[in-house]
Amino acid sequence: MRKGSTVRRRVTRVSIGDGGDERRVRGDLLATEEPLEIRVVRSEDLSGGVGMDAAARRVAVTMRTPGADFELAAGFLFSEGLIDGASSVAAIRYCTAAEQRYNVVNVVLAPGAGFDASALSRNFYATSSCGVCGKASIEAALGPACARVEDGLAVSPEVLVSLPERLRASQAVFERTGGLHAAALFTAQGELLRVREDVGRHNALDKLVGSALLAGEVPLAGRIVLASGRLSFELVQKAARAGVPVLAGVSAPSSLAVELAEEAGVTLVGFLRGARFNVYAGAARIASPAHT
Amino acid sequence: MRKGSTVRRRVTRVSIGDGGDERRVRGDLLATEEPLEIRVVRSEDLSGGVGMDAAARRVAVTMRTPGADFELAAGFLFSEGLIDGASSVAAIRYCTAAEQRYNVVNVVLAPGAGFDASALSRNFYATSSCGVCGKASIEAALGPACARVEDGLAVSPEVLVSLPERLRASQAVFERTGGLHAAALFTAQGELLRVREDVGRHNALDKLVGSALLAGEVPLAGRIVLASGRLSFELVQKAARAGVPVLAGVSAPSSLAVELAEEAGVTLVGFLRGARFNVYAGAARIASPAHT
Repeated sequence: MRKGSTVRRRVTRVSIGDGGDERRVRGDLLATEEPLEIRVVRSEDLSGGVGMDAAARRVAVTMRTPGADFELAAGFLFSEGLIDGASSVAAIRYCTAAEQRYNVVNVVLAPGAGFDASALSRNFYATSSCGVCGKASIEAALGPACARVEDGLAVSPEVLVSLPERLRASQAVFERTGGLHAAALFTAQGELLRVREDVGRHNALDKLVGSALLAGEVPLAGRIVLASGRLSFELVQKAARAGVPVLAGVSAPSSLAVELAEEAGVTLVGFLRGARFNVYAGAARIASPAHT
Repeated sequence: MRKGSTVRRRVTRVSIGDGGDERRVRGDLLATEEPLEIRVVRSEDLSGGVGMDAAARRVAVTMRTPGADFELAAGFLFSEGLIDGASSVAAIRYCTAAEQRYNVVNVVLAPGAGFDASALSRNFYATSSCGVCGKASIEAALGPACARVEDGLAVSPEVLVSLPERLRASQAVFERTGGLHAAALFTAQGELLRVREDVGRHNALDKLVGSALLAGEVPLAGRIVLASGRLSFELVQKAARAGVPVLAGVSAPSSLAVELAEEAGVTLVGFLRGARFNVYAGAARIASPAHT
C-alpha cells in the first residue's frame, strides 16, 4: 500500500481554562514518516539475466515523508557526490520484489556512468592529517565534485524579505500538520518555482535539488533557495553542490555552515523575519538600493 | 584547540525601513558545529601493549555542538542499543593521537561488556520480510534492548504547560545564538533537573540520556523529557530506550513517532503551547483534575 504524506490519528486535546481542564478527542492530521531505502543498480550488472533487485546495492536509508521519492533518491545521490548529474541516471523505479515496494527505490545508472561509493564516507572522513575536524569536513565537502559557486547574481533585500510569506502561502501539507520542513526554489525576482516538503530538513532540500536535477536545471544559477529550520553544514553543502548562489533561512546558521558558505561561494542569509535579515557570507550578492 | 559552544562572527544586518535599506556590520554569536567521532575500545584489545588509539574502532560521526561530548558518546551508544548501560563503560577519553583531539572520543568498554555493533544497522534493516517499512522500524527499535515503559506516573496538565517556559529560562546558549535545540529532564512536579543543548535535536537528547546514564539514573522512571523541535521516530526511540514515561514537545510529532510511542508505552505530548497541548499516545498518564 502506498502511503500518503499525511495520516489521520485520534488525539486528545487538553486545554486549561478557568473552569478546569477540558479534554476533547478529535481527529488530527500528522505528517507521515516512513523509511526509504535508496539502492543503486549499475547497468553493467543487469546483463546476463540478472534481475534489477538482485543487482541493486543498498546505499542509504532515510526517514522521510512519502512523496517525491524519485527526486529524493536522485537529489540524495547527487548531493552526496555519488553521481555526477542527471546524465548518470538511466531510470528510477520502486523495487518490485519487496512487500513494501513504495519504501525501496532503485536508481539505475546509465551505462558507463561513474558511481563513487566512497564519497559517502569521505564526507565525514577526510584524508586530512587532523583526523576529523571542521576544516577537514569543509575540504571533503568541497571535493572535486563541488566547484566554488561563481555567480554574478544580485538579489534585492526587498525580494529576500518577501520569500517566507510566499513559501508559507504554498506550503500545503505544513498547513495541515505543522510538522513538515520545506525547501523552496525562487528566481532572483522572488517568483516561487518549486517547493518540496519533508519531516527532515535535509530530505526537503534533496527533493528540491533532485527535482531540478531530473529537469535538467542544475546547476541552479541565478536562483535562491529558502530553507525552513536551522542552516546547518549539511544544508550549505547540498546547496553548494547544486550551484545555488543564495541560501536563505528563517533561522540561525551554525558556525561550520557559515565557514563552508564562505569557502564555497554561497551567500548565506539567516533570521529572515519581517523586514530584516542577517547576511553571514557572500554579502556582495545583496544588491544595494538604487536610491542611495 | 578546544572549541566552545559558540563562535563570534561578523555579520551584515540588513533592515528595510521607510528611508531605504539599512546595513550594519556587527559581531554575532553562532552555535558551534563540529564533527565528533565516537570510537569504541574493548578492554580485551588493550592487552599485549596495544595502545588505545590502535585498538579503537570507529562507530559513528555526528555533527554536534562541542560540550558534554562524553555524555553524547555514552548516550549515543546506549540509545542505539550498542551498549547495555553505564556498567558497560570503563572510561571515556578524548583521543590523544589525533591533532584535533577534542573531536574524537574513545569509549573504553568494561571487561566482558557486551558490544552489539550490529544494532546500528539493525535499527534500519530489520529482518522482517517486508524489507524496510515503518512496522519493521518499530520492531527493530523495540528489540530485546528496549522493554515497554510500564510506569504508573501521572502528570498534571498544569505541570506540562509550565515546562516550555522553565526550559526557556535556562537555555543559555540558545538565548545567545537562537541556533540550538534542547532536551530537558523534569520531575513529575515540573522541577528542571538537567538541560542539554546541541545543533542537532538527536544529539541534545543523547547528551541528556548520556548524562543520566553516567549518573546511574537510567531508566528515567517518573521523569518527563521536553524536546525542542519536531517529535520524530528517532526521538521516541531514544526516550523509550531510556525508560522515559512522558516525552513532550512544542512541535508536531510524525506518524511513525506516534505509532512507536504507543507500542513502546511512552506518553507523547505535542504542540505544548500556552495553556494547551495534544496527547498522541498514552493519555492515561495525564492526570485528571482533582476538582471535577
